[in-house]
Amino acid sequence: MVLADGWLTARNAKTAHGVIKYGRGRIAAVVDREHAGRSLIDVLPQLGRDAPIVPDVQQGLAYEPTSLLLGVATPGGWIPDHWRAWVVTAIEHGLEIANGLHVFLNEDPELVRLARRHGAQLWDVRDPPADIALFSGRTLALPKRVVLTVGSDCAVGKMTATLELASAGHAEGYSTQFVPTGQTGILIAGWGIAVDRVISDFVAGASERLACETHPSTDVVMVEGQGSLWHPAYSAVTLGLLHGACPDVMVLCHKAGRDAIEEPPYTKLPPLAEMVATYEQMASTLRPSKVACIAVNCGEGVDRERELRSIEDETGLVAGDVFAGDAPRLWKAVASALPPRRGHHHA
Amino acid sequence: MVLADGWLTARNAKTAHGVIKYGRGRIAAVVDREHAGRSLIDVLPQLGRDAPIVPDVQQGLAYEPTSLLLGVATPGGWIPDHWRAWVVTAIEHGLEIANGLHVFLNEDPELVRLARRHGAQLWDVRDPPADIALFSGRTLALPKRVVLTVGSDCAVGKMTATLELASAGHAEGYSTQFVPTGQTGILIAGWGIAVDRVISDFVAGASERLACETHPSTDVVMVEGQGSLWHPAYSAVTLGLLHGACPDVMVLCHKAGRDAIEEPPYTKLPPLAEMVATYEQMASTLRPSKVACIAVNCGEGVDRERELRSIEDETGLVAGDVFAGDAPRLWKAVASALPPRRGHHHA
Repeated sequence: MVLADGWLTARNAKTAHGVIKYGRGRIAAVVDREHAGRSLIDVLPQLGRDAPIVPDVQQGLAYEPTSLLLGVATPGGWIPDHWRAWVVTAIEHGLEIANGLHVFLNEDPELVRLARRHGAQLWDVRDPPADIALFSGRTLALPKRVVLTVGSDCAVGKMTATLELASAGHAEGYSTQFVPTGQTGILIAGWGIAVDRVISDFVAGASERLACETHPSTDVVMVEGQGSLWHPAYSAVTLGLLHGACPDVMVLCHKAGRDAIEEPPYTKLPPLAEMVATYEQMASTLRPSKVACIAVNCGEGVDRERELRSIEDETGLVAGDVFAGDAPRLWKAVASALPPRRGHHHA
Repeated sequence: MVLADGWLTARNAKTAHGVIKYGRGRIAAVVDREHAGRSLIDVLPQLGRDAPIVPDVQQGLAYEPTSLLLGVATPGGWIPDHWRAWVVTAIEHGLEIANGLHVFLNEDPELVRLARRHGAQLWDVRDPPADIALFSGRTLALPKRVVLTVGSDCAVGKMTATLELASAGHAEGYSTQFVPTGQTGILIAGWGIAVDRVISDFVAGASERLACETHPSTDVVMVEGQGSLWHPAYSAVTLGLLHGACPDVMVLCHKAGRDAIEEPPYTKLPPLAEMVATYEQMASTLRPSKVACIAVNCGEGVDRERELRSIEDETGLVAGDVFAGDAPRLWKAVASALPPRRGHHHA
């Protein structure tokens, strides 16, 4: 059961949208007072999944959910009183609470006590493990190829590009694994570390650990990127993730038409070709790494063909929009940029 | 009173050395069993200060200290049992305990209880404030010039260069203020934030806050750098600090002869000129910033004259060794790279 509560169609329901579109669990019901009584597929057809929309958690219980997802960023960040009452109800019914917010349920002694009594799990998705080690370079010895999505800015579609490319690679017979580094990805995959919540000394160590913890049969590790080297608030996370993951290949994700970061201080972005060169240069201290292609999030009202052609001309790289089905084409560019398989299979 | 306990002359007493050399408080006594009975000035003349060396905390109490500094990185990181007994003794005598270690005294309920009873302060120097905001760009509106030391690697002398340059600038009539970003600097200045302990999303916000919290009369803010863009374990901290501080001018700190990072995975460093260009490029997303000079830590057994001349030839920048008294010369290069004063004094 997904709690959206009036924000279902708003941008701050990004986590809910991601989990509905890419999550593997059944969606029992969506809680949203604005659209209660309608069907999810009618309200948000682009998510491609249906579920009843109910006005509150009590009515959602009729659809036998096993967990309640708090997947909306509330203005101000904390849980409104009526949400807290719903969380209590859900706990009393033994549901797992999956919390993507910055505030942690496990820091609320009353909820912790209640959950213990009812055998309910409280999953604070952003809470990193306590035992993350410093970066050591062991990713460099990993017998797997690593692909990392990197961005021109925040919120340009890095997670979606990573998921779609992992899936396109899988369809081509590659053993790909998606590595989540943010709350939505973690909720979708059921594991991962929110690297932006890790103490800054340990960002690279956390990324390294994630790349190394992929399934032994994985050949191509697909790491979800975060932030942008040009977004001053998040560039630390971006660079720590880049160095920790030691990518062999990168995919630059970009939102069509954006020429400055979307948040204060709204600084100007360099041309795409310069961003490609900078990411390659910053990665190179660990190993040579190329940007294989550009994943352009064209969005609405853009002449997609023309936009992609112009970016291809500018950068000399393949450009495609994974939101419009171009992942297989972009995967081809990624696959041909991959180095030979490492490990025990060398000739 | 400074606790060194057998490590006084070892590299892991870096924090103790820094505080002894640059701290403004009186050094009542130094606890070190190896050199007990001797004088500090005889054992470590380069620190330029004297104090009796005693074998334990009990004997140090005779010299009427007001605080006990834990300024040695112990192997393994935690406090040995006999240290803990000493800390208890010091608390019982009402001393403030200044702790530069990763482990926090305030997380030890017994010590917290004891300190409360005796009116003793427990100062965990690395513990960041809880209310750090995200980077917003307000540093850009600050009517102060900002100088940041940046490094080719860790442990190349960035803190010392920052302190020596702040002092050289002060001697030339500039209103400089040293901004500490690591535990030793914080112990010396009595304020600051250990930016490597901050949650990664907030590194830039913490740096911004530090630059903005300098005294209103400060004209030139001298920010202590951390890590290196080429040290993969710490590059996240380095870039977050760079973007948060928004420097007008940078000083590249380097250890003579080092051509690879000193820790795993021992990756190669690029030529100095390339490091200068990369720091300038990464800073430029916020505002134009030049590396004004190179602070070279020549160390022992190096032909200093020749080393500095060769670096000047390679980079086209002034090079000097602040450990050998070159700070005034380097300050000249910094001063002439500073932009005009901002704020209310424009023509």
